Amino acid sequence: MEVHFRRLTIIGVGLIGGSLARVCRKKGLADELVGVGRGRKNLVLAVELGVIDRWSHQVEEGVDGADGVVLATPMGTIIPLAERMAPHIEAGCLVTDVGSTKASVVEPLERLLQPSAAFVGGHPIAGTEKSGVEASFESLFEGLRCILTPTDRTDTEALARVQSLWEACGMSVVCMDPDTHDTLMAGVSHLPHMVAYALIHTVTGLSCNDHDAVAYSAGGFRDFTRIAASDPTMWRDICLANRKPLLAMIDRFSGSLDELREAIEGADVEALQELFAAARRIREGL
Amino acid sequence: MEVHFRRLTIIGVGLIGGSLARVCRKKGLADELVGVGRGRKNLVLAVELGVIDRWSHQVEEGVDGADGVVLATPMGTIIPLAERMAPHIEAGCLVTDVGSTKASVVEPLERLLQPSAAFVGGHPIAGTEKSGVEASFESLFEGLRCILTPTDRTDTEALARVQSLWEACGMSVVCMDPDTHDTLMAGVSHLPHMVAYALIHTVTGLSCNDHDAVAYSAGGFRDFTRIAASDPTMWRDICLANRKPLLAMIDRFSGSLDELREAIEGADVEALQELFAAARRIREGL
Repeated sequence: MEVHFRRLTIIGVGLIGGSLARVCRKKGLADELVGVGRGRKNLVLAVELGVIDRWSHQVEEGVDGADGVVLATPMGTIIPLAERMAPHIEAGCLVTDVGSTKASVVEPLERLLQPSAAFVGGHPIAGTEKSGVEASFESLFEGLRCILTPTDRTDTEALARVQSLWEACGMSVVCMDPDTHDTLMAGVSHLPHMVAYALIHTVTGLSCNDHDAVAYSAGGFRDFTRIAASDPTMWRDICLANRKPLLAMIDRFSGSLDELREAIEGADVEALQELFAAARRIREGL
Repeated sequence: MEVHFRRLTIIGVGLIGGSLARVCRKKGLADELVGVGRGRKNLVLAVELGVIDRWSHQVEEGVDGADGVVLATPMGTIIPLAERMAPHIEAGCLVTDVGSTKASVVEPLERLLQPSAAFVGGHPIAGTEKSGVEASFESLFEGLRCILTPTDRTDTEALARVQSLWEACGMSVVCMDPDTHDTLMAGVSHLPHMVAYALIHTVTGLSCNDHDAVAYSAGGFRDFTRIAASDPTMWRDICLANRKPLLAMIDRFSGSLDELREAIEGADVEALQELFAAARRIREGL
């Protein structure tokens, strides 16, 4: 399916929103690109960079006359923004989001927007530890996956159009229900971030005989902590939005770590060898 | 101080031993380079690559006539090898090791070797997840740190020579006692590896509605698991050799993770924001 917007409004012109706008610009997927956000500096820069055509601080104004809207702000702001924009959305407008958790937003957004607009929940699995439009780039999504989470209430044509939009960005699109999405992401994305945060807090401030531990950190620790530099507000919101699956995943992880701890405490040579060899095989199969 | 060996024997011609041999070759630090190891294929390749001049499977034979010996095998083999080679070491020979933990080897090696040879414990903090001589390269050590762990029994000139050897590899050398080394490494190196192993085991086999979790892993998870591909035997031995500090560090980490878990469970917005913002500041300061 071809996808084209007369006026596409991107709410949150950051790493994801900005990169999507760049693709739309380059491929001519929108006649006009409108940005909505709070930070004036970021929006001015977005226009200077040619990422968007114009901007507004007011979401009500920003969505006016748009036939497409992408919500690309931190999780915690999605529902309040949808509440504000709902009365101003043009009939038939296609709305999608890029939120990292889905169950907590899909149902409320359908309820708020579906009367006249068409909503499709989405999550392009892409990102770097950087944020803001200056961090955005056109090839961010290339070769990566995008999960869409249609429900019984999702319009089939709207779903096909959102799929085309992300495919135009170079992504391969998979559909699943919101809860499945949230459980999978709790494991492969949210848990690793929590572990990185805990690791940073463990090692920071650790010193021994006046030697600061972090001064001796090599590749391993640095690799781990790269993702801990991600936007704190975004991650706070993800934790709150995906609380239950994330707590279950933390407990599952603690169980794995306990098993390993027990093997170390018991000096269980065979168990350690097998645990580490299995991890290597798994990693090599990724 | 200038460092030069008439005959330098490298026991374990793998990533570290092989890379050290390459530097010695290039900078003319040794007239002859002898390799000792178990794997014939690896040793033959090491000669073909010009990394060593000749090799032996027998450590007794390999150290014969050497005025320098570097122990670069997995932790678990260091003491048995030292026991075997001790009676064959030339008087005045300089012996050092590259083991990732120090308290468990320094005292036994001093006892075994010091009667005639000079031993200095060392740990070049370098490595990749690859192993074997084919993974070795000359610039592996450049710009990184090497920790030496002299004791009251360490010969001053021997210490200076080992320091020069690693400085010739491009490393900056720091001295500390073996226990301090082990505590610091438990935090910045061994703990991150344990966490990576636990993470791999947590996510593997996780599926939801026929979707395999690992299929949806993005940058974060993959970065984390890179180090889990490291040599299983090496890591098994490190765990056993550094058991006590590592267990303490795992408990410290579990405390940090529990704190984070509690903030998520209690939906404590301020605590989460502050934990994540602090981690970002710390990471950015690395």
